Amino acid sequence: MAIVVNLEEGRERARGPSLAPLVALVGEDLKRVNEVIVRRMHSPVALIPQLAGHIVAAGGKRMRPMLTLAAARLCGVASGERHVNLAACVEFIHTATLLHDDVVDASDLRRGRATANAVWGNKSSVLVGDFLFSRAFQVMVEDGSLDVLRILSNASAVIAEGEVLQLTTANDTETTENAYLEVIRAKTATLFAAAARVGAIVAGRPRAEEEALESYGLNLGIAFQLVDDVIDYASTAEKMGKSVGDDFRDGKITLPVVLAFLRGDEEERQFWRRTLEALDQRPGDLERAVEFMNRHGSLRDTVERARHYGAVARDALGIFPEHPVKRALAELVEFAIHRAH
Amino acid sequence: MAIVVNLEEGRERARGPSLAPLVALVGEDLKRVNEVIVRRMHSPVALIPQLAGHIVAAGGKRMRPMLTLAAARLCGVASGERHVNLAACVEFIHTATLLHDDVVDASDLRRGRATANAVWGNKSSVLVGDFLFSRAFQVMVEDGSLDVLRILSNASAVIAEGEVLQLTTANDTETTENAYLEVIRAKTATLFAAAARVGAIVAGRPRAEEEALESYGLNLGIAFQLVDDVIDYASTAEKMGKSVGDDFRDGKITLPVVLAFLRGDEEERQFWRRTLEALDQRPGDLERAVEFMNRHGSLRDTVERARHYGAVARDALGIFPEHPVKRALAELVEFAIHRAH
Repeated sequence: MAIVVNLEEGRERARGPSLAPLVALVGEDLKRVNEVIVRRMHSPVALIPQLAGHIVAAGGKRMRPMLTLAAARLCGVASGERHVNLAACVEFIHTATLLHDDVVDASDLRRGRATANAVWGNKSSVLVGDFLFSRAFQVMVEDGSLDVLRILSNASAVIAEGEVLQLTTANDTETTENAYLEVIRAKTATLFAAAARVGAIVAGRPRAEEEALESYGLNLGIAFQLVDDVIDYASTAEKMGKSVGDDFRDGKITLPVVLAFLRGDEEERQFWRRTLEALDQRPGDLERAVEFMNRHGSLRDTVERARHYGAVARDALGIFPEHPVKRALAELVEFAIHRAH
Repeated sequence: MAIVVNLEEGRERARGPSLAPLVALVGEDLKRVNEVIVRRMHSPVALIPQLAGHIVAAGGKRMRPMLTLAAARLCGVASGERHVNLAACVEFIHTATLLHDDVVDASDLRRGRATANAVWGNKSSVLVGDFLFSRAFQVMVEDGSLDVLRILSNASAVIAEGEVLQLTTANDTETTENAYLEVIRAKTATLFAAAARVGAIVAGRPRAEEEALESYGLNLGIAFQLVDDVIDYASTAEKMGKSVGDDFRDGKITLPVVLAFLRGDEEERQFWRRTLEALDQRPGDLERAVEFMNRHGSLRDTVERARHYGAVARDALGIFPEHPVKRALAELVEFAIHRAH
């Protein structure tokens, strides 16, 4: 027996951290979430299930609903519909913000697929986003918890506020690391935090456990976004299903840029101003950007920052006793960071 | 005394029905609604109060929050904050849909002022709309009534669904009167209905009174929209603060068009197809459109349809005893229809 365990551990290490343990634990619930999503996206207006289905099928990792399911499970929820329905709400809110984001960013590709607005137009993306957002609140009202409604309406307001903040600070190469962190905290991490907390609320656990899971989600979300920002300069479209250089082309100021700008000389700063502020980009500029980042270790150090938040996330789970879900959530942190390699 | 009353009645008739009696009754509360709106639009992200303030200052008649206030008053609410806060929620939801509408319609003018998207860009309009929508739900959660949350989340979903429906049926001159009615019921009347019902909920009145006020709001909303659609062909920008011919230029299929198309000969139908489907418009086309409408009485009969819904709205108030607010709400119906003249 001991040998078998060792072999598995060895195999585990060889393939690196993965989502597999978490998926194994909440996969059945996640299937039910998908069913709820499809059922609740139904509308006599055919474009709504079509367009929303496009997004849902494009998939992604379903990180946020998995967080709700895992948090509920860690807090002892073993049956019932509530965590499943609320996980679907979280995904609806996320999908609505994706639809609106793609309009705002005028993206053509997301995870290697055409975005909804590229296929159906901006108008549909705005309106179907509104529909999904409203539907999320309808499902929460059916669930009946004012605590859940409070957490997710607050999260939605913070997300929207963060998006507006990003809009007004966009293309400013003098953005501070702190300002950048505020944006990703609002835009990404807040929904991770809310997703996890909602799971604890369903379980009716003490406030300390709610807050522990919220902190786990918040810090995991920051780590995730930081690594995403690295991948945008350090990966290939084929590998990650993401168009490399998107952020660069859009003039987005992410942490790798902030650090490269701060550490660069005047000539480099002129380069960043030309390419990201004036959006005057020429062939070879993306490669040069990556070269500057490597020269100053700004990609490496962005991953280091992510490790910091990952560590905080892992420690937040400390109040929970040993549990397979706890281990899977710790591995999720490793996975989030390992994607940069 | 009798003479004075007669004089006032005479004066009343001379100036036609107006909003004045309603404003006199709920004006104090409406001031408080405006204060709540300003206070709750506050955000450290300056663009949010700026942009939302632009919309709120542009004003309009505050029909929807007035409905909430009037319904609460009719049901006996004489004090407290709830009806005021919830009236502000209704206005937030309305403002959010206006912001998104203007993006979808690419409008430059609303009530004779530049739209927010024309000044700040589509991105801001999408995101600040999302913020206002979230803020509305936050305020509802603070209020704590799941009934109110249900009514307004349902209304929001129906509105979004109606907008998508309109998008997919846009520029189709063969739209039926029925399909058109479904769109305006969803896009406009549902929020009028919800606004009125919420007032009754605050008062804790029996379901029959909630439903009576909901029916009043729904039918009033339909009448309002029908008359708005007439005004778009029959008024002047100076008079109504609305750009005449907007609907025509956008190829919107409203009831005056539906009726003119149905009643017109093949040559006229070709005209409607060219101008509204192909959007191939030439100088003099708007005048010709109005001529066709007058030939077939389609503007006049749209007002007739509005009168029908107005009558239903007035009768819905029948279960309420005599009350100044009841009289003011009946006059509001007259006012809605009288705008066409």
